[in-house]
Amino acid sequence: MADIDQTALLQFLLRMGDNTLILSHRVSEWCGKAPVLEEDIALANTALDLIGQTQLWLGYAAEIEGKGQTADDLAFLRDAWDFRNVLLVELPNGDFGQTLMRQFFFDAWSSILMPRLANSSDPRVAEIAEKAAKEVSYHVERSADTVVGLGDGTEESHKRMQAALDYLYPYVGEFFLSDEGDAAITAAGIAPDPASLRAEYDDFLERVMAKATLTLPEDRFTHHGGRTGEMHTEHLGHILTQMQWLQRAYPGNTW
Amino acid sequence: MADIDQTALLQFLLRMGDNTLILSHRVSEWCGKAPVLEEDIALANTALDLIGQTQLWLGYAAEIEGKGQTADDLAFLRDAWDFRNVLLVELPNGDFGQTLMRQFFFDAWSSILMPRLANSSDPRVAEIAEKAAKEVSYHVERSADTVVGLGDGTEESHKRMQAALDYLYPYVGEFFLSDEGDAAITAAGIAPDPASLRAEYDDFLERVMAKATLTLPEDRFTHHGGRTGEMHTEHLGHILTQMQWLQRAYPGNTW
Repeated sequence: MADIDQTALLQFLLRMGDNTLILSHRVSEWCGKAPVLEEDIALANTALDLIGQTQLWLGYAAEIEGKGQTADDLAFLRDAWDFRNVLLVELPNGDFGQTLMRQFFFDAWSSILMPRLANSSDPRVAEIAEKAAKEVSYHVERSADTVVGLGDGTEESHKRMQAALDYLYPYVGEFFLSDEGDAAITAAGIAPDPASLRAEYDDFLERVMAKATLTLPEDRFTHHGGRTGEMHTEHLGHILTQMQWLQRAYPGNTW
Repeated sequence: MADIDQTALLQFLLRMGDNTLILSHRVSEWCGKAPVLEEDIALANTALDLIGQTQLWLGYAAEIEGKGQTADDLAFLRDAWDFRNVLLVELPNGDFGQTLMRQFFFDAWSSILMPRLANSSDPRVAEIAEKAAKEVSYHVERSADTVVGLGDGTEESHKRMQAALDYLYPYVGEFFLSDEGDAAITAAGIAPDPASLRAEYDDFLERVMAKATLTLPEDRFTHHGGRTGEMHTEHLGHILTQMQWLQRAYPGNTW
């Protein structure tokens, strides 16, 4: 482990943990508001799984950072420019279909990445990924089924799912971008090159969208800036005001 | 002044300042999003006027409190249960028509109250009210005209304004409730008995709604709890997370 670039490892862990943290917050916004009770509970459970993964990723990140911080500190006391999540996860929920489309895009990526991370040269990363992989395989089954059900559903649900797809797809490409930090992590065998997941991801999306009778946009333009921290959408700041207010107003408070 | 119940005076000032603070925040949410440019600027100006009034009311409140706090401290460092605004001002903006209906309900009350407060036995209250009265007389002209224009407009705008009226009217009655603190303030000649404004307010609303071809609900049931701090709506907490995050995250920061 001494040979591995600790800055790159920290960044990798923040990227993993911030993705699940912000997505979890978004999904939790549905609590008590989903269209049917079973979906409400399912979304709450998804949010809880994602928070569980967040605690592991950010907990390890805090250790690597070595400044005596905890996962909670990283979640509640950083400002927007320190977050490293992809832009996709901070986008608004929209309607139920849009939320599930975003969830499927994330789950599909996660379901391809986690089994590979389970073979990471870093045993802690491997351990977290192995646990997460089980949850993710269930999440992706649910979100893919829902995308198919609503896409190949009524005229109205089809129209909405196509709109969700068109809105969200230009954010998908950020999963597969990489920088010097990723190169160091890949070279150290900690994680695969992000771009190496794309072909499998595209195949998966094409299969699901075909079943859903939805049309994938051909344009591969992608919004980005979240995972590098260069630029987040306006939405992240609003999420943080809600998510962090309690710890900001009552520093160090616990229950 | 030595004879006046300082607790009651403080509460009165918080009620005045919290009303304008929270309404100002709500109105400011329209900034950059109103249906036409002129309305956008008009709403921003309204929000600024209300913030100006807030600084005066809460500035005086901070003096009366005598704990070395400022208007900013009262705005940014209190928690939901310490706010004394009526529930009406914390309700969501809804569409443009709903925002203007809420504004008219507030402006109508303020336009009746301010000239009376301008004769307050407390010279500071009188001074603030005299300044506010000028702004309010302009606000109420604008909001009443817009309510009439949209109410007596297209079929769609009429329908929306009637819905806004039906939604918001059950919050209007809180302006006219009173407690022991109000009794003390009234006895000291600082402010009129809240209930004493109701007849004039009702007349005003009836006139405007008649011109707007809108039907005032007959039911006088009113939601309440805001001005006493007993119970706010769920919306206030969300407003505070947005409004207070910066001061909470960066305590004492200025620019």
